[in-house]
Amino acid sequence: MSASQLIIFDTTLRDGEQSPGASMTKDEKLRIARQLERLKVDVIEAGFAAASQGDFEAVKAIAEAIRDSTVCSLARANDRDISRAAEALKGAARSRIHTFIATSELHMEKKLRMTREQVLEQAIQAVRFARNLTDDIEFSPEDGYRSDPVFLAQVVEAVIREGARTINIPDTVGYAIPELYGSFIKELRERVPNSDQAIWSVHCHNDLGMAVANSLAGVKIGGARQVECTINGLGERAGNCSLEEVVMAVKTRRDYFGLDVRVDPSQIVPASRMVSQTTGFVVQPNKAVVGANAFAHASGIHQDGVLKARDTYEIMRAEDVGWAANKIVLGKLSGRNAFKQRLQELGVQLASEAEVNAAFQRFKDLADRKAEIFDEDILALVMDESAGSEQEHYRLVALSQRSETGERPHAQVVFSDGDQEVRTESDGNGPVDAVLRAIETKVQSGAELLLYSVNAITSGSTESQGEVTVRLQHAGRVVNGVGADPDIVVASAKAYLSALNKLQSRTERVAAQG
Amino acid sequence: MSASQLIIFDTTLRDGEQSPGASMTKDEKLRIARQLERLKVDVIEAGFAAASQGDFEAVKAIAEAIRDSTVCSLARANDRDISRAAEALKGAARSRIHTFIATSELHMEKKLRMTREQVLEQAIQAVRFARNLTDDIEFSPEDGYRSDPVFLAQVVEAVIREGARTINIPDTVGYAIPELYGSFIKELRERVPNSDQAIWSVHCHNDLGMAVANSLAGVKIGGARQVECTINGLGERAGNCSLEEVVMAVKTRRDYFGLDVRVDPSQIVPASRMVSQTTGFVVQPNKAVVGANAFAHASGIHQDGVLKARDTYEIMRAEDVGWAANKIVLGKLSGRNAFKQRLQELGVQLASEAEVNAAFQRFKDLADRKAEIFDEDILALVMDESAGSEQEHYRLVALSQRSETGERPHAQVVFSDGDQEVRTESDGNGPVDAVLRAIETKVQSGAELLLYSVNAITSGSTESQGEVTVRLQHAGRVVNGVGADPDIVVASAKAYLSALNKLQSRTERVAAQG
Repeated sequence: MSASQLIIFDTTLRDGEQSPGASMTKDEKLRIARQLERLKVDVIEAGFAAASQGDFEAVKAIAEAIRDSTVCSLARANDRDISRAAEALKGAARSRIHTFIATSELHMEKKLRMTREQVLEQAIQAVRFARNLTDDIEFSPEDGYRSDPVFLAQVVEAVIREGARTINIPDTVGYAIPELYGSFIKELRERVPNSDQAIWSVHCHNDLGMAVANSLAGVKIGGARQVECTINGLGERAGNCSLEEVVMAVKTRRDYFGLDVRVDPSQIVPASRMVSQTTGFVVQPNKAVVGANAFAHASGIHQDGVLKARDTYEIMRAEDVGWAANKIVLGKLSGRNAFKQRLQELGVQLASEAEVNAAFQRFKDLADRKAEIFDEDILALVMDESAGSEQEHYRLVALSQRSETGERPHAQVVFSDGDQEVRTESDGNGPVDAVLRAIETKVQSGAELLLYSVNAITSGSTESQGEVTVRLQHAGRVVNGVGADPDIVVASAKAYLSALNKLQSRTERVAAQG
Repeated sequence: MSASQLIIFDTTLRDGEQSPGASMTKDEKLRIARQLERLKVDVIEAGFAAASQGDFEAVKAIAEAIRDSTVCSLARANDRDISRAAEALKGAARSRIHTFIATSELHMEKKLRMTREQVLEQAIQAVRFARNLTDDIEFSPEDGYRSDPVFLAQVVEAVIREGARTINIPDTVGYAIPELYGSFIKELRERVPNSDQAIWSVHCHNDLGMAVANSLAGVKIGGARQVECTINGLGERAGNCSLEEVVMAVKTRRDYFGLDVRVDPSQIVPASRMVSQTTGFVVQPNKAVVGANAFAHASGIHQDGVLKARDTYEIMRAEDVGWAANKIVLGKLSGRNAFKQRLQELGVQLASEAEVNAAFQRFKDLADRKAEIFDEDILALVMDESAGSEQEHYRLVALSQRSETGERPHAQVVFSDGDQEVRTESDGNGPVDAVLRAIETKVQSGAELLLYSVNAITSGSTESQGEVTVRLQHAGRVVNGVGADPDIVVASAKAYLSALNKLQSRTERVAAQG
């Protein structure tokens, strides 16, 4: 680790997944972890192993699959959480335990109901315990930025003495201002006598829109050498620091930061799309780096400028962050090899040849109905295919629907329920409502629909596929189902059944206790 | 103007509208301008009067309608542009002309092909000319942040001498870092002998995700007292500084900034929704302040904390920025008065009693099909209604469609084309495709479909309305059509016809010349 290296710690699968509605299945997390490895992030925070059996299994699966990035699990500062984290991480090539306890007066008093002395003691005990299980320990004083610096320094000094290697100072509520946050870290490091024995880390939330700037001030002014961030800035409330923004800022302004990051920027857009498609969290068009418009110019003046010299209005190149230059790729005559090669170029790695074959079959079916197949179509196919690797209990067989002004829309659906084929019908407020009601009549999941959205996968023609996301909640669990089809009513049925399959699967998730 | 007052300059209708796909009609701009006035922004940049006849008329209409905010038009640094701006602004209670010319070596050489001397002279001439037409002149050196500070200071000193009252330093390409941008403004002010005779302004783009932090550094470190920003951070590429973020940062961290803003934060969320619905630019759930999740908590730990003490995880209150506490508002038995009162509470002002009546009629029709009417439904109705005030050439009369596995989806549509009723039918890849093809067969607009998206207007039930946005491009013009209906195929037909109506309307827009 050179002093000019900035460690990128991705917490999409942990802090990002805490975003209401963004919960992911084990298979989805594994797929994203593989993409994060291709992106060459240094550390993947894979989850919070002690939160639930599902979280434990996801961390375990990721630890076993990932070779090039360190895999990390969060753990509260107690022996049980830390043991669970260590157990889940056993199979990892490199692993880290990230333990935390709140240090702000507000959190200690209102949430933990503990004194300063108790918190200090628990932090020490936790790191000491973790030190027996691993030598890569990260410690976070939760709500650190709102903590008394004198007390905070005392805690940090103690945990470094116990063997914590990374000290992360979270702005848990997104309250910081760059100048203040940078100075806070700087002064804290000066106050901690053994501060040079740890790498300092920043973790910022975006409630006031400044997570990236705060993180970078922590690096530049404060001397931190690790940034915690998520793809698309996913995370609770307004989210976390965006990986893509912080990485591209450091690369674009190398003149100022003088730091290296290991991340391969050409994998940024594929990672962004995968996270967005998996969670159903749209990326707004005017999002930096990964928004659909991030590299688009409209006004005559700007277009003219761009034509005359790219640098007049562009400080980054779209190609560098993985926006494919040529988007029309395949058609109905394309063979399996061309398809497989395009998957590779898109950074998609399917788990088995069987999955490749199934995806190719879907590709051929689609190509029969759609003349031009775009990268986005292929990614949707693959998402569908990978979704198929979840326990697929329900599957759409056939659908017919009609609506007519003055009459109630009506739908008939045939779907397989395990080995059985079920026929059902219903009317509804619209054809989608009718289809969902028809399915629900038979399945009786009792799930609540939290989100329904459709996006055309490709623009520029009415023959685009629609990609439908359905978010369901039942018994404290939230799942996202995605379905793609040129017929959005069919896509809606697929998305609903996909969500039901996920609700069915046994990986129960229990809310973490505070 | 006290020294502790921060002027909020909104450029949603000018720089925001330059975002590819975000172009708005005159009526849409007027509606948003009224909302900006309710929001109490100090200055509304209403457009770029010389860019086209449509822009001119929009600026003129806004100037005549708005009483409480200053209305501003952009103008290149030449007599024609400035005259057009002054003419469009004639009816305003308070008006401003905002003139600009690029001052960076790159822009002067590659785009303007002018020498420093020529640029300086043109800036002086422009402000001198404008001074005869108004006493409120703002000057922007385009790409100011990448300009030679010595030359820039020379230009700024000269234009202040000619009477420019506001000096705005744009980070045109979103390249700045807070610390550097703040110092740049500070040093520039020190270098300009007459700097105290102008109010300094910041204008930042978000390409590296730091527009808000950069703007605030320009204020805190640089001493600027005007921030240029847009609702939802709308704007070219990654957009502009977000109004909602910058305002809430100044309010939430008053301890640090010590500044007052006149903006009424309770109008922020209504403004955000209106801009998003009008432009078809979605707001991502994890967007600060106005994202659907901005005030939502998921993890058990955080929920527990929030229950124990709100401050543990919240630095702002959702109610303060206009997230309605109670969302279920009206049902089928609600009368016209209740409806009108709710419109007022939502900050919606319809232009005439006829519009209120028409909206109320649509409300009753909807209430027949949908048990609970949410605020979002009402806003969609009103958008529909206001859209109806555009020249409404095409209108949906009836629609029937069907799709069935193994067969081509088919649609029959009846719509009015002026005084005539047109019947048409087509098949397609899906029912939406069939409907759009059926309409297109008769209308033959030749328009290209740039965007198709659907969002459920309310969550929590399958009886939600779908809100469809269709973006069409034809002959260099881009329009957004929006349609809402519980049947998304019907909503799609409405959205398509609404977009065609906008393409039909005569307000031609010509791309500005560089």
